[in-house]
Order: sequence, then C-alpha cells, then structure tokens
Amino acid sequence: MSFEEIYPMLEKEFTMGVDIGGTNTVIGVVDRHGVCSIKSSFPTPAHTVEEFTKRLTASIGELMTKLPQRSVLRGIGLAAPAARRREGIVKDPANLRWGTVNLVDILKKHFGLPAAITNDSNAAALGEMNYGAGRGMQNFIVITLGTGLGAGVVTDGRLLYGNNDTAGELGHVILVAGGRQCGCQRRGCAETYVSASGIRRTAFELLARDNDDSALRGISFNELTSKRIYELACEGDAVAARAFAITGEYLGRLLANAAAAFDPQAIILSGGLAEAGDLLLLPTRKSFEENVLGLHKGAVEIVVSSIGNGNAAILGASCLVLEDAGQLVNEKVPDRLVSQL
Amino acid sequence: MSFEEIYPMLEKEFTMGVDIGGTNTVIGVVDRHGVCSIKSSFPTPAHTVEEFTKRLTASIGELMTKLPQRSVLRGIGLAAPAARRREGIVKDPANLRWGTVNLVDILKKHFGLPAAITNDSNAAALGEMNYGAGRGMQNFIVITLGTGLGAGVVTDGRLLYGNNDTAGELGHVILVAGGRQCGCQRRGCAETYVSASGIRRTAFELLARDNDDSALRGISFNELTSKRIYELACEGDAVAARAFAITGEYLGRLLANAAAAFDPQAIILSGGLAEAGDLLLLPTRKSFEENVLGLHKGAVEIVVSSIGNGNAAILGASCLVLEDAGQLVNEKVPDRLVSQL
Repeated sequence: MSFEEIYPMLEKEFTMGVDIGGTNTVIGVVDRHGVCSIKSSFPTPAHTVEEFTKRLTASIGELMTKLPQRSVLRGIGLAAPAARRREGIVKDPANLRWGTVNLVDILKKHFGLPAAITNDSNAAALGEMNYGAGRGMQNFIVITLGTGLGAGVVTDGRLLYGNNDTAGELGHVILVAGGRQCGCQRRGCAETYVSASGIRRTAFELLARDNDDSALRGISFNELTSKRIYELACEGDAVAARAFAITGEYLGRLLANAAAAFDPQAIILSGGLAEAGDLLLLPTRKSFEENVLGLHKGAVEIVVSSIGNGNAAILGASCLVLEDAGQLVNEKVPDRLVSQL
Repeated sequence: MSFEEIYPMLEKEFTMGVDIGGTNTVIGVVDRHGVCSIKSSFPTPAHTVEEFTKRLTASIGELMTKLPQRSVLRGIGLAAPAARRREGIVKDPANLRWGTVNLVDILKKHFGLPAAITNDSNAAALGEMNYGAGRGMQNFIVITLGTGLGAGVVTDGRLLYGNNDTAGELGHVILVAGGRQCGCQRRGCAETYVSASGIRRTAFELLARDNDDSALRGISFNELTSKRIYELACEGDAVAARAFAITGEYLGRLLANAAAAFDPQAIILSGGLAEAGDLLLLPTRKSFEENVLGLHKGAVEIVVSSIGNGNAAILGASCLVLEDAGQLVNEKVPDRLVSQL
C-alpha cells in the first residue's frame, strides 16, 4: 500500500479550542500542526451560565460527530475573560452575569475528557508561542485589542501566570493619573485609551477640542465603532486618522513601560483594533521608540499577529490540553532554568 | 567521640557573595543556611576595571585564608549594576567607567572556581527568595531603594530575566509623563521620584512650593541626604515628613501598576530608603490600596526586608552558584510547570 492509501487510516489527534467572548463563543477543532479545520459558533448567553454550558456542551458534541474517521480527541481547552488556570474557573467576568463557575469540571464530567481554561489574552499568547509570530521566542508580549486591552506575557520561555493567574493585566496599568473613567472603578487605565472603546473616546475628545470637519460629527457615541473610525481614516478623514495616531501614541507609552518591566524581544498586537495595521502600528512604533529606555531602542519588534480569523485564542486554548499532557509543541526551556529542576 | 568533637572535622561548604556597589564593594562568606559570617569591603575603583579586578581578586584571596578548617568553597557569586546573567558581563554601568567586562570569566580563570553574576536587584530577590521574606513564595517583587530604584521579580517560582537579562527595570517605568529629568536621558522615570535622590528632589520641590519653616532650608542640595531627611522627619520636621509621604504616594502608584503586570503575593522593600520603616511604608500602603485594581485590594503584602546589614544582595549573589549547580535551597517549581519539561 502507498502512503496515500495508508494516511487516511492512521489515527489523527485533535484538540478543541473554545474562545468564549462577551458576544460570541467560537469553537474550533485544531490538529497538532495548529490547523483549525472545523469551526462553529453561537451567541454567548450572558445571563445564565446554565444556558451557556448547555449550548457549549451541545455545540462541542455536534462538532465531535464531524471529526474525520480514526480521530482521537485529546481534550478541550477554553479561553475566557476572568478565567484562572489553576482553579479551572471563570471568576465574575465583567460582561457576563455568571458569577464564579468551574467550567473545567463541568466539561470533564460531561465528556470524560481532559479540559483546561485560561484567560483570553493568555490563550492568545500561547497561540502565538506555538503557531504564530512568537514561535521560537523566549520573551514576548501579546497585546489583545478588543473592547478592552489584555496582555499575555511570555518570559524566559513560559507564559507568566502570577499569584492569582491574573498577571499581564496591562489594560489596567494606570497610564494617565486621574484620567478617563474605567469599568474597573478607577481612572486613567490604559484600556480607556487603547482599545476599541478607547479610540471612540479619543475621537469624541477630538471633536470636542478642535473645529475640523469630519464625518464623525454625524455619528452618535453609541453608533460609533472603531471599525467605522478605521474606514473613515482610510477615506482620508483627518480626525479619524488623528484618533489612530493618538491611540498609537498612548500604546507606545504603555509598551515602553512594559519593555522596562518584562524585557521582551517582541510585542505582538492582536485583536480587532490591530487589524488597522500601519494606521495603528506606525504611531505606536514611533511613540515606543521615543519613550523607551535606551537599551531597548530599536531592539524590540512590534508586529501585528499573523494568525488570521481571530484564531489566536482558539489555537492557544487548544494548547492548554497539550501543555497539561506534557506535549506542548514549541516549548523550549532555557538551559539555565533546566538545571534548577 | 561526641557530636561536638566530630562537628569541627566535618567538611563545610561555603560560597562567596560579592555586592559591587557604585561606592563600595562588599564580600561575604555565606554558608548553606544563608549565614554570612565573614565580610570584607573596599571602595569600588570606579575609573578602571583593571584596578577593580585586582582589588577584588586580592580581597577574595585574603578571605579564603580565613575560612574554617575543612571548608569547601563552592564558587563566587557577584551582584553588580548593569550585570547580565547569561553572558556573565557587566555592560556599561552608569556610575562606573568600566565599559563592558566579563567578570565571570576573569574570576573563573583566576580561582578555577565556578562563578556567576546578576544585577543587584535580581540578587536581592534571590536573597529574599532563599533566606528572607520571600521564602516559600512563588510570586513576589523586591524593590531596592538606593540612589536609584531597582526591582527583582519572582514569578511562578522563578526569577524573571527577560531577553537581555534586564527584566524588572521598574525604576525606569515612566510614572509622570514629561516629569523629572532622569539619568537615562528621559523624563518622569519612577526612580526620579522614589529613591534616595528622588526624595531629595521632592524635599526641594516642597521648599520651593510652600512657605513652611524647616531645617531643610539650611541645607544645600549637594549636602542633603535621604538619611538627613529621615532624621528630620523623626524630629518632627513637617516638610521632611511630607517628603516621605509624597515618596510613598508615588511608590504606591508604581506598585499598583506592577501588581497589575506581575500579580504578586507580596512586595518587599529593601535598601537604604526602606530603612525609614513606617515613615515610608504607611503612605506607600495607603497609596497602593487607593490605586490598585480591585482584585489586588487588601491582597498584596507590602513589607520591609528582614535581611539586615545590607546582606540581601550578598546572599542572593551566593545563591547564583548554587542555582547553576542545581542545588538551590528553596526553589519550588509549581506542579503545572514541571509537566512541561
């Protein structure tokens, strides 16, 4: 028999990666090469976690029936806001009225498979580490720019968790003392400036401050999206373009401080706002170089994630199961650290 | 023979720990319990590194002759500004005109013993981890408050190094945009507010701003020391006391951001300025609680180092050699991480 004849008969291993967002939950079937071949999604039921787990288990069950012949499902990895890796829980997520719930236990019991969870930014960092721009890097930061700003930090070859599995909350580093009001009950947090909602606030600040003509003047705060600001900037709207420039200026300052703290080789921008590309990237790099400590000048790559289709968190979530099984694809521990074990 | 008779005949293991400061270099002989029994010091020759290495090897050689009978010297660990662990070098230290020099190679060749180096704040963190307030903790930050502000960060049971072995440069996190001029060619760095020199600047700002009587008005900027401000605050000088309150306010803000980034269980203050105790600690804790993210409120201990006599960096430096030999005393790797290796 030829290889082509044998191949379909070999056992193939898959892992499910689930990206639980405030709006949608997306499930992907991921193979050992990080290819996400089958996906499904449903609107995240925000009100009761019971409804959510019912939808989740049903959707996973349905995807299982679509796996190729001779498939082995290794387990289910979850990415969710306010998730804690060690405990397997989601703890009081800001945009979901779920309270505290152990999703890992629920899935383990329901499917009899290994399961694990981490927060969405950490999952994105694991995705980049194993299948994206972070491959082979020992020190990098992934910044996820969605409604808020999250970060996953890889240092010395490992994802940084911290005492409560909440390390890397760079969205809540105070960037402007006494600045914009944040959902966390404080003021001036980075994500009130650098995020999809932050850039809307910046656009409105510009409309208030200057007299320039702009199509933004015809849009209410509630109707405005960061995508619309992006489109207008591309069409030559100067206020919209300036909103991106200012967002990049703030992001560069945040990243300069993060470089002092973490000493990364690269910073990877991910999430909806990062899709603006150079419009955000160029002012970010400029501000970073202006604000960063001498030793990091010109030495830290700032790039946009190369993982498409919003798949970074799904891929990263799928890695959790492999990590627990000691089979992480791309993990390389520095020699210095190995000697300590 | 009784134990008392046998004990002096047993082999005893020691390590040398060297704390290279801008002013003095202190060498200590450290046993496996972290007891530093014999010490010597000399003024650090700042101008030529050749003169320094001559003094250093001579002093180490002299200390070797003072070791108890049947001693085994395991190696020499160094703590120095601008030191890099992997390369074994000191790279352009700000206050020493040494350029870049591989002190580890020099000592290895001279003594035929294992040697290692890290920066002073990382050494202090290793000291706290193995023999001080960080014992048994997986996540903590050591802040060293000397002429500048340094930090050593332990996350998930490991000292954080980063891409250039320069992680934890919290003294150069920009705390005030466009603020005080820093030696690093930028403005507003944390150490321009929170350090022995920072508190002098704060005191002079207060003398300029307010009209309060103060003994500080009779002291020139060059003559003023943080120790003098401390003494005056203890004697009831309101301006001196306010300088400490403001320093603590800034430090609390820095630590609140550091908590978001690193998710520590505790923060340990070390170095000269930390010896002010409650005068600095109380306003720092107050400001930390006011500025920190909800999940960290009341959950992060802020304490002063319990390692006396400025020995934290000596003890930590001595640990480097044990770490390289895989014999670190107190290292505990979380189970989660072990499975990845």
